[in-house]
Amino acid sequence: MAKDYVVGIDIGGQTTKCGIVNRRGEVLARTVIRSDETQDVEVFVASLAEALHRIIDEAGVEGQISGIGVGAPNGNYYKGTIEYAPNLKWGGAKVIEFAKMLSARMDDTRVVLTNDANAAAVGEMTYGAARGMKNFIMITLGTGVGSGIVIDGNVLYGHDGFAGELGHTCAVRHNGRACNCGKNGCLEAYCSAIGVARTAREWLEMTDEKSLLRTLDKITSKDVYEAAKEGDALAIKIFEFTGRILGEKLADFIEFSAPEAIILFGGLAHAKEFLTEPIQKAMDANVLPLWRGKVKLVYSQLKEADAAILGASALAWEG
Amino acid sequence: MAKDYVVGIDIGGQTTKCGIVNRRGEVLARTVIRSDETQDVEVFVASLAEALHRIIDEAGVEGQISGIGVGAPNGNYYKGTIEYAPNLKWGGAKVIEFAKMLSARMDDTRVVLTNDANAAAVGEMTYGAARGMKNFIMITLGTGVGSGIVIDGNVLYGHDGFAGELGHTCAVRHNGRACNCGKNGCLEAYCSAIGVARTAREWLEMTDEKSLLRTLDKITSKDVYEAAKEGDALAIKIFEFTGRILGEKLADFIEFSAPEAIILFGGLAHAKEFLTEPIQKAMDANVLPLWRGKVKLVYSQLKEADAAILGASALAWEG
Repeated sequence: MAKDYVVGIDIGGQTTKCGIVNRRGEVLARTVIRSDETQDVEVFVASLAEALHRIIDEAGVEGQISGIGVGAPNGNYYKGTIEYAPNLKWGGAKVIEFAKMLSARMDDTRVVLTNDANAAAVGEMTYGAARGMKNFIMITLGTGVGSGIVIDGNVLYGHDGFAGELGHTCAVRHNGRACNCGKNGCLEAYCSAIGVARTAREWLEMTDEKSLLRTLDKITSKDVYEAAKEGDALAIKIFEFTGRILGEKLADFIEFSAPEAIILFGGLAHAKEFLTEPIQKAMDANVLPLWRGKVKLVYSQLKEADAAILGASALAWEG
Repeated sequence: MAKDYVVGIDIGGQTTKCGIVNRRGEVLARTVIRSDETQDVEVFVASLAEALHRIIDEAGVEGQISGIGVGAPNGNYYKGTIEYAPNLKWGGAKVIEFAKMLSARMDDTRVVLTNDANAAAVGEMTYGAARGMKNFIMITLGTGVGSGIVIDGNVLYGHDGFAGELGHTCAVRHNGRACNCGKNGCLEAYCSAIGVARTAREWLEMTDEKSLLRTLDKITSKDVYEAAKEGDALAIKIFEFTGRILGEKLADFIEFSAPEAIILFGGLAHAKEFLTEPIQKAMDANVLPLWRGKVKLVYSQLKEADAAILGASALAWEG
C-alpha cells in the first residue's frame, strides 16, 4: 500500500511543532508541545511520540505514514543525532541519537533528521519558491542566521554532516561584534533579529539623531521595522546597513557555489521593502561581473505558520 | 575493445601542454605547443590536433583513446566552451565552442572541458593527495588564485558551470587592493604570486626595515621565498601575512562546505615551510569550534611538471 503521508517536526528551544502533511504540502493535523519542560530526553521523546500518535489518529492516517522528518538545532543528517545543542534543555552537553530513539517509539517508522535551515531549504524546494531549482542557497534570518545550501538538487552536508554554517562566516574582520559562537564579526551578529536590535542600540548611543526608537525601553528588530514603516530615518538606515552587510557576504557565497537564486526566509525577511534594495546593491557591487544582475534574490513562499513543519516533512519524502 | 588511454591538455596563455596518460596516471608521451602564435582559434585547434595525432602515434595507442580532457581558463564544463578568456590571444572577446571544435578534428573522440583549477582537483582526486576523499577544496596558488571544489565526489559546477571562484571572494573589505577582475580586496590580490610580490613592494616602501629584498630591482614571489630561506625577517613576515589572510578565508570556506581537507597547489605552495603555520593558525582561530583542528591542510602530491596534464586527463576518465 502506498503511504501517502509524512510527519514534519520542528524542534525549537521552547516549543516543538508537529504536523501531518500530504503529497500536496497540505497540513492535515497539527500540534505543539513544550520542548523545555524536562531535562531528560527520554521523557521528551515519549511525550513527542504520544503527541504524534494523537494527531495521526485525528487525521485518520494510521499505517499510512511514509516517514518522519525532523528539523532540529545542531541536527546531523548522516548520524540522525542532535549534537551539543545549547538551546535545548535536554540536549546541551551531549550527542543524542534522536532519530533512533523516536523511530523506536513510532513502530520503527523511518526518521530523517537535519538542522532547521536545511529543512527549510528542502521545504522550499518541495513546496515553495525553489520548486524546479537544483542550485540555490536558503538564508534564514531569525533569532540567528542559518543556511541551507542545495547543490544539484541535494542538500549540501559535507564531510561530517554540518556544512552550511554561513551565519558564522566573517562579515566584519576587524573589531567585529562578539557572536554567541565565541567568534567575532560573524554574519549572524549583524543580520539576525538580535543583530538588528543591537545595531539600533549602538547607533542610538553613538549619535544624537532623532528617532522613534528613542522612546522605547527595550528595542527588538520588530520595533525597528515598525519605526521604518513610519518613515523613521534611523530605522531605515539600520536596514540599509544590515542589507549591505548581508549582500556583501552573499556575493562571496555566489562565487563559491554559483546558485540560481538566494532565498530569504524568517522573521527579518518581513522587512523586505527596506532590505531588498541594499542587499541587491551590495551583492552586485561585490560579485564577479559574470554573475552581476543574474542571481535571483527571492523570498520564501511558504506560509510562515506551517513553514517549519512543511520543511521537516519534505525531508521524509526525500530520504 | 577497452580504451585504456586518455589525453590531457592544459591550455595556458603562452603554452599548451598535452600528454597521453594511462589508467595508472603515467604520462606515456607529451608535447608542448605555443598558445599565443595566432589570433584565429581554428588555426590553434588545427595545430593542437596535429600535435595530438603525433603523440598518439608516438605512444602507439591509436584507436585506444577513451577521451580527451581539457583544462582551460574560463572553461565551462556544461557547455564545453571557453568564454571571454582575456589571457588567450584567440579567446578574448567571445564564446568559443572549443570541445566541439577539437572533437571534430579528433575523429569525434569525446572532449571534456573545465577550468584549470577544477581539472587540478580532479587530478588530485584521481592520482594525488585527495585519493579516497569525497569532499575537499583545492586552492591553486599560482599567478592568480583558483579553486576547485569537490562535493560528494563531484566537482561543483553550480547553476551556470562557473562555481568555485574563491580567488575572488573578499579578503580585505575596506581599502582592499585592486584586483584584475575589477573588484577590490579579492583573495587573489593578496595570496597569489603577484599578490606576494606586491606585498613585498608595498612593505619595502612603507618601512625602513632591512631586507635582502632591497637589493633587487624587480621582486617576484620566488625572490621573497629565497630571502625567507636565508632567514630574512621581512620576507618571513610577508609569508605570515599571506598565510593569515588565506587561513581567514579558508575558515569561511569550511563553514560553507565542511570539507575533509583543503589541498594547496601551485608555485606559491612551495613556500610551505613559511605558509603552513600561519594558515593553520588563522584557519583554526576563525572557524567554528566544531571544525577546529579537524580539517586537514595538505599539499598536492602530483609531480608539478605533469600535474596540469594529469588533472585534465583525469576529467576524461570521469566524463
